[in-house]
Amino acid sequence: MLKKKRLFTPGPTMVPEEVLLEMAEPVKHHRAPEFVEIFEAVNEKLKKLFFTKNPVLTFLSSGTGAMEGAVVNTVHSGDKVLVIEGGKFGQRWAEICKAWNIDHDVIHVEWGHPVDVNLVADYLKKTHYDVVFMTHSETSTGTVNDVKAVAELTKDTDTLLVVDGITSIGSHELYFDDWGIDVVVTGSQKGLMLPPGLAFAAISNKAWAKIEKKDLPVYYFDWVKAKKTLAKGQTPYTTGVSLIVGLNKALDIIMEIGMENIWKKHQKHGDATRAAVKAIGLELFSKSPSNVVTAINIPEEIGASNVINKMMDDFGIRITGGQEHLKGKIIRISHLGYIDDVDIISVVAALEAVMYNLGFGNKLGEATKAALEVLTVDN
Amino acid sequence: MLKKKRLFTPGPTMVPEEVLLEMAEPVKHHRAPEFVEIFEAVNEKLKKLFFTKNPVLTFLSSGTGAMEGAVVNTVHSGDKVLVIEGGKFGQRWAEICKAWNIDHDVIHVEWGHPVDVNLVADYLKKTHYDVVFMTHSETSTGTVNDVKAVAELTKDTDTLLVVDGITSIGSHELYFDDWGIDVVVTGSQKGLMLPPGLAFAAISNKAWAKIEKKDLPVYYFDWVKAKKTLAKGQTPYTTGVSLIVGLNKALDIIMEIGMENIWKKHQKHGDATRAAVKAIGLELFSKSPSNVVTAINIPEEIGASNVINKMMDDFGIRITGGQEHLKGKIIRISHLGYIDDVDIISVVAALEAVMYNLGFGNKLGEATKAALEVLTVDN
Repeated sequence: MLKKKRLFTPGPTMVPEEVLLEMAEPVKHHRAPEFVEIFEAVNEKLKKLFFTKNPVLTFLSSGTGAMEGAVVNTVHSGDKVLVIEGGKFGQRWAEICKAWNIDHDVIHVEWGHPVDVNLVADYLKKTHYDVVFMTHSETSTGTVNDVKAVAELTKDTDTLLVVDGITSIGSHELYFDDWGIDVVVTGSQKGLMLPPGLAFAAISNKAWAKIEKKDLPVYYFDWVKAKKTLAKGQTPYTTGVSLIVGLNKALDIIMEIGMENIWKKHQKHGDATRAAVKAIGLELFSKSPSNVVTAINIPEEIGASNVINKMMDDFGIRITGGQEHLKGKIIRISHLGYIDDVDIISVVAALEAVMYNLGFGNKLGEATKAALEVLTVDN
Repeated sequence: MLKKKRLFTPGPTMVPEEVLLEMAEPVKHHRAPEFVEIFEAVNEKLKKLFFTKNPVLTFLSSGTGAMEGAVVNTVHSGDKVLVIEGGKFGQRWAEICKAWNIDHDVIHVEWGHPVDVNLVADYLKKTHYDVVFMTHSETSTGTVNDVKAVAELTKDTDTLLVVDGITSIGSHELYFDDWGIDVVVTGSQKGLMLPPGLAFAAISNKAWAKIEKKDLPVYYFDWVKAKKTLAKGQTPYTTGVSLIVGLNKALDIIMEIGMENIWKKHQKHGDATRAAVKAIGLELFSKSPSNVVTAINIPEEIGASNVINKMMDDFGIRITGGQEHLKGKIIRISHLGYIDDVDIISVVAALEAVMYNLGFGNKLGEATKAALEVLTVDN
């Protein structure tokens, strides 16, 4: 039967039609003046996205490429770093450090919990760390960490704070300059409402002072070279021209709504989804739920994979499951990026119907009721 | 705030992305072999759409063009015809007859009611009519008429039955050959899930015998000429090549699902919408509701235009109001064409929230519950 394809995954996310159409325009050459003009416009908008006065670097890679770039550009030989790890994406910082033989301590946070900022403070008191790596929105568990509070600990020290903002930029409040963060990386296929392909980094003056003296071997992700070419409206190597043309449009959409309003939208959609999940009688997995993705415990007798498959089979809705040890135990519903109120109503009603048909609960309509009560406030 | 545009109007209707992409392919010349090949494939599929062995004519016009074509090709000078009129589109048959000075009687059916087939039988017994014109799905009132029963009255006589199937083809059961109908016209922007621009006519052998001897002046809508050129895979004049390329894809989608399943889908979506409307505490306008569009009475103190505006302002959902004397009294929600279960959930939940916020009723979630109870049966 006829079913539309609807992505409720935390990246790739859905892409607005206007953006898709921009990307379908004839391909421009990456050194041509008409492309440079667009790229320079994009670069100004990227500063507003991160709330920074500094240039934002653009890379043709996934977010992981920008993460590795952040490590090799900010860490010097002999440095000792701290990794805060509370999920699959926190682990990635540690994996990169391990691959580069970087001396790193790890704060292991129980998955689904936010990091205890006092514990971070204790670590920083006991040991001198050159760089702290953390995750803003931990997508594997639907958990948001308090980046602002950690930045309070590092901003007036010589320790750099490097943040994975891959799913949080464009969804959770983040004032890069004001909070005193040193590096935030993100990717295109998340809050920016684009297909995968581009990654970005905002970088503080404090970080640049150190990056200028970098001594680890790096070529493609050489941030100093990227900064120099950016000043001429260029990238060191061929960039994703069609994605950047799309990004220009996506940033126009975001800026027209306004960053604070975009954050409010994600807050409202997170609140509505969580209210609906509770109305169904399900439990949230995270103790500090993000507005990016809602992770939901699924009773063993129901089976998370059954829920995921039935959401697709019955309603054409693509959601995701747990990763690593959470596989089969949770489902994750994203409300990141190009999602509107109607999408939220759709996904929670579909979830309720799927749970009902799998024998969980005996109610229908309660999820919609709970979501609507949140959504129709100040609509 | 970010809102997606969603059409729940009975034409234009939403168009599948795959069809839009086909139409974005480079324009073909209407006499080129590669276009003729596509057009011939389309013509075979159109026969399956109408359940007829005869060729189906394609016109570059709105549905009204095909209606006028049906009149001037089937009616001869001196003929007397009968028009069944129970809404704005039934009126159109009478308006065309009037414009052409055709001697016509009109059965005036109360808007929102189906025609009484016994009354039609009485008319046919009392007077000899050369042609009967009727509407299958009367979109202005959301009412479906019993075409099969009227065809029973005409099929073994020399009276032709000409049916406006503009919104019913692809949504309501209609077996052209088996039922013994003589002409059915339809348009592209309805059940066929295309933008406006094309109109179609299925024509019986009995009708062709008369059309071949037509004596009213006609050029653009000359069906005899159209039939002759169709035999060569052509149209008499330039046709809408991109629309036909899109139609080829749309018919593939429809045929893959199967006509009977498409009808079942519309039945289910009509049933679900009607159940939700009742759960909200609202009344259906039609006494014989179609599966094309649900017409709903809106209490005067709420105001239909307030509901329509709030559906757009709060949820980005476009619905329509009443026409002529029903203006301000009813709203119309279409579930025609490229609509899936999730769309139905969306539109009824949004309607309930809008009514609630306008002060009607004190429930939320009941519309979704009622719709889901229908939708999840044999999903």
